[in-house]
Amino acid sequence: MLTLEFHFDFGSPNAYLAHRVIPSIEARLGARFDYVPVLLGGVFKATNNRSPAEAFRDIRNKREFAELETRRFLARHGITGFRRNPFFPVNTLLIMRGAVAARHAGCFERYVEVMFHSMWSDPKKLDEPGIVQAVLHAGGLDAPGLLALTQSADVKQELIRNTEVSVARGTFGSPTFFVGDEMFFGKDQLRDVEEEFIRQRDRPA
Amino acid sequence: MLTLEFHFDFGSPNAYLAHRVIPSIEARLGARFDYVPVLLGGVFKATNNRSPAEAFRDIRNKREFAELETRRFLARHGITGFRRNPFFPVNTLLIMRGAVAARHAGCFERYVEVMFHSMWSDPKKLDEPGIVQAVLHAGGLDAPGLLALTQSADVKQELIRNTEVSVARGTFGSPTFFVGDEMFFGKDQLRDVEEEFIRQRDRPA
Repeated sequence: MLTLEFHFDFGSPNAYLAHRVIPSIEARLGARFDYVPVLLGGVFKATNNRSPAEAFRDIRNKREFAELETRRFLARHGITGFRRNPFFPVNTLLIMRGAVAARHAGCFERYVEVMFHSMWSDPKKLDEPGIVQAVLHAGGLDAPGLLALTQSADVKQELIRNTEVSVARGTFGSPTFFVGDEMFFGKDQLRDVEEEFIRQRDRPA
Repeated sequence: MLTLEFHFDFGSPNAYLAHRVIPSIEARLGARFDYVPVLLGGVFKATNNRSPAEAFRDIRNKREFAELETRRFLARHGITGFRRNPFFPVNTLLIMRGAVAARHAGCFERYVEVMFHSMWSDPKKLDEPGIVQAVLHAGGLDAPGLLALTQSADVKQELIRNTEVSVARGTFGSPTFFVGDEMFFGKDQLRDVEEEFIRQRDRPA
C-alpha cells in the first residue's frame, strides 16, 4: 500500500496553505494524506534550522519574494480567507500535543480543521491554554477532555517520537511530504507530490 | 514586446542546470531568453544573502535534500554530463566581465556555452586568468582580445550596472528569471516562467 504523508505543525503558514490544497489533490488521486503531527520547534532544534521568517529577515528582497510566492499560490488555488497571525510566532507545543490527543480521542479531522482555521484564517493566540480551550469549545470539541489528554505521558512521548522519526527520514522544515520514502518539501512541491504518487502507483510491480 | 530574461552567474550550479533546460523551453514558446550577466557575489553583498552551499552547510538534512532535488531535476530533464566543480567556490569576476565583453565582441552565445561547460561539465579553476585563456582558446574564441576587453572601464561598469539593476528589480540569488516584470527564482520555477510567459503573451490587450 503506497503511503502519502503530510508532516505538519499548525505554526507554519505554508503548512496551512498546503492543507487548503490537499482536498483537491486527494480528490484527483482518490487517495488520502496521512496527517502526521510533528513539532516544528523540535525539527529546527534537531537540524539547526530556523523559520523562514527568521532566516529571511535580514536578506533584502527575499521576504518580499516569499510574500509574492504566497500571493501567487493563493491566486493559483483560489484560496480566500488566509490571514497572517498577528501573534506570530506562536509556541505550538500545546496544540500539537492536542493533535496527537485528538487522534486518540477520535476527533482528529475536526481538531485539525479548527486549529488551522484559528491560526491562519481567524487568527488567535494559540499558545494560551484559555484561548485554546475557548477555540475547542466553539469548534464543538471536548475541550476539557482534550486538554487533559495533552498532559498524558503517552501523548507527549508520541509527539516527540513523530518528530524524531520525521527528522530521521529527512525533514528539516514545514510542510514536508512523503510519497512512500520519497520526500518533498514546501507547498510548491505539491505538484511533484501528486506526480510522484501517480508514478509509484502506476509502475509495474 | 514581452521580455523573457535569465539573470545568471557561471558560478551557480542551478544557473547551469537552468541553462541546460532553456533550449527546450525556447522551442516550446518560440521565444528566446535574454541572458543577463550579473555578479552573484555582488548580489549577495547588496542583499546580505549567502550561497546555498554556505547557508545550508550547518543544517542537518537540508544539503542532502538539495542534492536530491538536483538528482530529480537531472532525471526529469534527461541532463547528463553535470559535474560538481572541485574548485568551488570559484571567484567569477573575471569570467562574468568576460560575458559582458563577449556580448560587445559579438560572440556571446559561444562564450556562455564554453564557460558553463568549463564550470559544470568539464570543471576548471576559472578564477585563474591562464586557465580562462586556455579554455577560451580551446573553445575557438579570441582569448587575448576578450581578456583585454574585460579590463575596460565600460565592461567593468556594465557588469556592476547589470547587477545593481537586477537587485533593484528584486534579485537576491541565482538563477533569477523575469517575464516582463514578474520575477521567478530557482531552477524549479522554470515551469512557472513558461506558464507566465504564455499567460502574458495570450492575454487580451
